Amino acid sequence: MTMSNTGQLMPSCVQLTDMLPVRYPVIQAPMLGVTTPAMVAAIANGGGLGSLPVGGLSPQKTAELIRLTREKTSRPFAVNLFTHAVNAPVDQAQLDAMQAFLKPVHEKLGIPFEHKSVADFSFYHYRDQLEVLLMEKVEIISFTFGILEPDVVELLKSRGCKLIGTATSVREAIMLDLLGVDAIVAQGFEAGGHRGSFLTDEALPQVGLMALLPQIAAAVSVPVIAAGGLYNDQTIKAAFTLGAAGVQLGSIFLACDESAASEVYKEAVISSGDTSTALTKAFSGRWARGIRNGFMEQMEQSGLEIPYYTYQNSLTSAMRTYGQQHNLRDYISLWAGQSAAHARRGKAGEIFLSLIEKLNF
Amino acid sequence: MTMSNTGQLMPSCVQLTDMLPVRYPVIQAPMLGVTTPAMVAAIANGGGLGSLPVGGLSPQKTAELIRLTREKTSRPFAVNLFTHAVNAPVDQAQLDAMQAFLKPVHEKLGIPFEHKSVADFSFYHYRDQLEVLLMEKVEIISFTFGILEPDVVELLKSRGCKLIGTATSVREAIMLDLLGVDAIVAQGFEAGGHRGSFLTDEALPQVGLMALLPQIAAAVSVPVIAAGGLYNDQTIKAAFTLGAAGVQLGSIFLACDESAASEVYKEAVISSGDTSTALTKAFSGRWARGIRNGFMEQMEQSGLEIPYYTYQNSLTSAMRTYGQQHNLRDYISLWAGQSAAHARRGKAGEIFLSLIEKLNF
Repeated sequence: MTMSNTGQLMPSCVQLTDMLPVRYPVIQAPMLGVTTPAMVAAIANGGGLGSLPVGGLSPQKTAELIRLTREKTSRPFAVNLFTHAVNAPVDQAQLDAMQAFLKPVHEKLGIPFEHKSVADFSFYHYRDQLEVLLMEKVEIISFTFGILEPDVVELLKSRGCKLIGTATSVREAIMLDLLGVDAIVAQGFEAGGHRGSFLTDEALPQVGLMALLPQIAAAVSVPVIAAGGLYNDQTIKAAFTLGAAGVQLGSIFLACDESAASEVYKEAVISSGDTSTALTKAFSGRWARGIRNGFMEQMEQSGLEIPYYTYQNSLTSAMRTYGQQHNLRDYISLWAGQSAAHARRGKAGEIFLSLIEKLNF
Repeated sequence: MTMSNTGQLMPSCVQLTDMLPVRYPVIQAPMLGVTTPAMVAAIANGGGLGSLPVGGLSPQKTAELIRLTREKTSRPFAVNLFTHAVNAPVDQAQLDAMQAFLKPVHEKLGIPFEHKSVADFSFYHYRDQLEVLLMEKVEIISFTFGILEPDVVELLKSRGCKLIGTATSVREAIMLDLLGVDAIVAQGFEAGGHRGSFLTDEALPQVGLMALLPQIAAAVSVPVIAAGGLYNDQTIKAAFTLGAAGVQLGSIFLACDESAASEVYKEAVISSGDTSTALTKAFSGRWARGIRNGFMEQMEQSGLEIPYYTYQNSLTSAMRTYGQQHNLRDYISLWAGQSAAHARRGKAGEIFLSLIEKLNF
């Protein structure tokens, strides 16, 4: 247990807050497209660990976001990388079939459509971002979608970085532990947004947090951070009881002032229920949990094979951007977890404080 | 919260143990084909609520099992009914396609195969069992797969029965609350065996317990019993923190002496991991969580449409019986949850006691 009977922090909480330069073992999840420098700073200023998502972004953009965040907070925050393979095999035929599906969607929305072949795509690899992270002296790096390569782990740790990986199964957690990360996020099935699963030789892990968290905590040597379905002091306390040293919350911040989510996205979240979400690869080519909408359903009915992450993400980008600008619920990726209904409007810092004050840290 | 800081039972636990004639708010889940009268009695004698599964059985068999259990315990126990519709539409063509799939399986196993048409099936309805339950003065009735019809609810309550329904979503839980049940089992995605979902107009609810339990507890007026992924004092305490008034455990008893599971089933459970299970309709026509095996994979690859519960269950019965008798891992329904690896051999009563003694009830 990490919460004593008198509500005080127990050894594993202290372990996390000693290791990471934060006051409270509460992390705001890095939500690409939603989490802004202002959100990160609000949580950091509140004593938690804000996480800045920079997955797949250019080095320049990465540097810009870090600096924008640092204008708003002098406290440390985590920077989140996507560590997927960039040069994955893709089939022109697959791309063509998907583009044949997307073309009428663009036409319906009145946005231009431009056919692409494999050679027209280019993606950043997380290695492209490392120099910026080191120059900016980022202290805490979290990563999802894969394993940091061992030479990168060695480099970052030699520079004093703390590394946080994400696992969706005990097997993935043990691998991260062996890799040498400093902490592991145990992402339950309840979590919104992209699944952090990175082992592709087996079926997608779909383990609920009540089963996943204690079994990961028992299997690894580093602090475990619980994620998925957490939304109030009650769920946070339960996570500590299950062996978590810290907690990560995302959906609760989806509707706040500092969230970049469009108004229709925020409304969808606030009016969602426990069964409103489903896993889909439709928007990005990677499994992610979001509120069911028209595009997800169309894609499912099409039976189309969805191209690998970087490609599909790029192919749907124009549609999603347009959807966001015009509040079109059916054309946005409404990433959200199974407890997202508890997201609140208002300032991120106040939402964060309202969690902390009930936790007797 | 239902656990005080000093570990004593809090109001909602007391609420459950006042309402049900048990000492501890810990329930052994009714597992048809695994739970025996001896198992039920062991938990009842230990002060918990044993649950006798009689879903779909004849009145005579129901009476026999109740009496066998009463030979071993004088304490009350729950009896679990299946409240699915019996006369559901089924297609002869669908049955024929499935039988064409099963025939070579029978031939491979060396068991007889007999083609059936719709008219050859007959099933018991739970109404057929009511007279026995009343005559035997069963005090606690739990039900899964549907809603007890309102006239039945009225009858059973007028005779002093306590009714426990199962919900896999907030919507289902509210329906059960409105129906007038005395307690509701919140069955998380982690749970082994059949999903208790009963609303068929929407996608199958797949809500993890961390999200489901507190959201159900906040939505209903009766005590909520947590189920799915629970396996030790840590997970049980977490469930109470999330608002549960009681807990239900199944998988942990799968390998005990009093379990009717075959040896190969017990071994599969003990050597399972968090990602060993998957949802399948292959064996019974209803979604259930079990350890992946050959028959499940074959059925998934076949792409066949699976006939309604009662029919599919009947069609696979001979194969499963043979598989059980001959320890054939691939032809048994290896129902188990996501924490089932913690199942233990030994006496059910001792396993139960080892949970209770760490809980400071």
